Amino acid sequence: MKYKMDLVSPAVFIGKQGKGVISFGSGQPDLPPPKEAIQGIDIRKDLRYGLIQGEYPLREALSNEYPNSTADNFVITNGASEALDLIFRAWGKGKVLLPKPYYYSYLPLVEMAGMEPVFTDLVEGRIDIDDFKKKIKGCKAVLINSPSNPTGRVELIETLKEIEKITAKLGVYVISDEVYKDLIYERENYHIKGGHVITVNSFSKTYAMCGVRVGYLWSSDKKVVDDVIELKTHTSMNTNLVGQDMALRAMAVPKKYVIDQKEIWRKRRDRIYNGFCELGFDLWRPEGAFYIFPKCRNAREFLATLFLKYKVIFYLGEWFGAPDRIRLSYALDEAQIDKGLECIKAAMKKVRCL
Amino acid sequence: MKYKMDLVSPAVFIGKQGKGVISFGSGQPDLPPPKEAIQGIDIRKDLRYGLIQGEYPLREALSNEYPNSTADNFVITNGASEALDLIFRAWGKGKVLLPKPYYYSYLPLVEMAGMEPVFTDLVEGRIDIDDFKKKIKGCKAVLINSPSNPTGRVELIETLKEIEKITAKLGVYVISDEVYKDLIYERENYHIKGGHVITVNSFSKTYAMCGVRVGYLWSSDKKVVDDVIELKTHTSMNTNLVGQDMALRAMAVPKKYVIDQKEIWRKRRDRIYNGFCELGFDLWRPEGAFYIFPKCRNAREFLATLFLKYKVIFYLGEWFGAPDRIRLSYALDEAQIDKGLECIKAAMKKVRCL
Repeated sequence: MKYKMDLVSPAVFIGKQGKGVISFGSGQPDLPPPKEAIQGIDIRKDLRYGLIQGEYPLREALSNEYPNSTADNFVITNGASEALDLIFRAWGKGKVLLPKPYYYSYLPLVEMAGMEPVFTDLVEGRIDIDDFKKKIKGCKAVLINSPSNPTGRVELIETLKEIEKITAKLGVYVISDEVYKDLIYERENYHIKGGHVITVNSFSKTYAMCGVRVGYLWSSDKKVVDDVIELKTHTSMNTNLVGQDMALRAMAVPKKYVIDQKEIWRKRRDRIYNGFCELGFDLWRPEGAFYIFPKCRNAREFLATLFLKYKVIFYLGEWFGAPDRIRLSYALDEAQIDKGLECIKAAMKKVRCL
Repeated sequence: MKYKMDLVSPAVFIGKQGKGVISFGSGQPDLPPPKEAIQGIDIRKDLRYGLIQGEYPLREALSNEYPNSTADNFVITNGASEALDLIFRAWGKGKVLLPKPYYYSYLPLVEMAGMEPVFTDLVEGRIDIDDFKKKIKGCKAVLINSPSNPTGRVELIETLKEIEKITAKLGVYVISDEVYKDLIYERENYHIKGGHVITVNSFSKTYAMCGVRVGYLWSSDKKVVDDVIELKTHTSMNTNLVGQDMALRAMAVPKKYVIDQKEIWRKRRDRIYNGFCELGFDLWRPEGAFYIFPKCRNAREFLATLFLKYKVIFYLGEWFGAPDRIRLSYALDEAQIDKGLECIKAAMKKVRCL
């Protein structure tokens, strides 16, 4: 067991909602899921195993969202996490390029599968295409996450198109983790395409149903799809059927649900971004997802102080490959964000963090 | 990808329920789940991540079924499959003793985790304690499955007690996969105990809810529990919350549900066992679970004939480490069992299988 991150790690904080706790930790919407996804659900009486690949109606509905696709291009998984885990395990060797900082599970998932991580350092939170070109050679795959957890940044469309082209030419797989695709403040999502692309996605963030654990992968590469199904037969079998039924209903919800939520996120984004600027932190303005990733000195001491004295939770940047930063999710209402900012201001008097 | 078992493999057959198909394949109850588990379920409005370890009320309810236990001794998983997968991955090296024939996922799960399988051949479908004593030395763990899938056999209580003792003395872990514990025709389950025991269990078979994917592991070894939680944080996060709510409700169902089901299984057991005896097959009388595992020559040809000509599915013994046998699940009503037997009788005229 190499991946014990810390005494205070996401494994400790996830799902914890204590009284009086203000958690900027776990990255999950606090907004309610669409009522259509949870009300009037008839739980099916036949609860035998479903297809390992996932229920046909859900995969068919998804195929309408992906150009030139059929239900065969999808595998429904226990969240995006399991999709990534199975893809890497199906390969089991070779190099994976990870833009750094990265989502904290990427590194363990790559290494546990027996693959080797290679890093390209983000510049101002975005991919540096020159470094990318150097590092991508000899890789089996690159894992892109735009909008990014933890940086909150969105890649330029021209960068994504260039990555699409370079990797196609070299025969390198692009795994595009697009779980925040519906949460971009500046523009529409640019969906990376191609026969060498594996898209990973989820219902968790868009429909505020993280705990239901329904995600999926899309690929037009039959071998990738078949290999993942074969593995999943042994490791977890079908993704839970009730969750898949809920996901299908969520997909039928009017677009307004997503648009309205984005407006709420935008306000919160402005609130916390401005708040942190006023406190003197050095940080990027989030363009998507719901994270800020400010620079921070003595981050461990700052975390301990905030957690123990003020019941405020945030995550350490070192879990994401950036020891000089901290990550805060702003999936909280504005009153809580303000209260959290007050606590942070107070803690800054005790710990030198700028 | 080493584990592509066959063109016709469980991955192909699981979840397939075509018109006119009689499937003795997938091992899952066809009986309905308890109505309490599926009716009047209020889907919770807060669908944020749950604890990776599993919901507290469910773990607390489980602790009443395990002597000297608390909620801390459990991790709720995506079925028993994921529990096994995470246990082996948390170790990542060492030898695992597998009684052979074994459930078809055991071997891939052990090997994919980087562990080495060691085999002890069953004698008359049961563990040979002398061979066990020889092979257990130097192993990290042994995986016991009583009642057994695929053999339908139940270990003698004296054997289980001796295994308990030998492994405790040697400091070897016992993983006891007891998913069929409520389906023993001859006696009560003997629950293997001890600080070196990891029990794996599931709601799938007892409550006929395979597709909901809720299982769990029990261990009093804090390191095992913590390591599994840490891994699960990256690989799939919490087990789906709605499924956990359903599992909790299933646990409150009167014992009569389980007893009534067992009577149905017993009748089916007698029907198929007697039918196969009459057809001249060499097989063990099932003592638990819902499988027969007869000897069979030319099994592949027999399978192809039955599937293509009669739409009857069974599984090849070679997937379970026994190429000279075939496995049939009798999770079918008696009329279907009879019809299946007719087809098998007809196919025996085309393929020499005795």
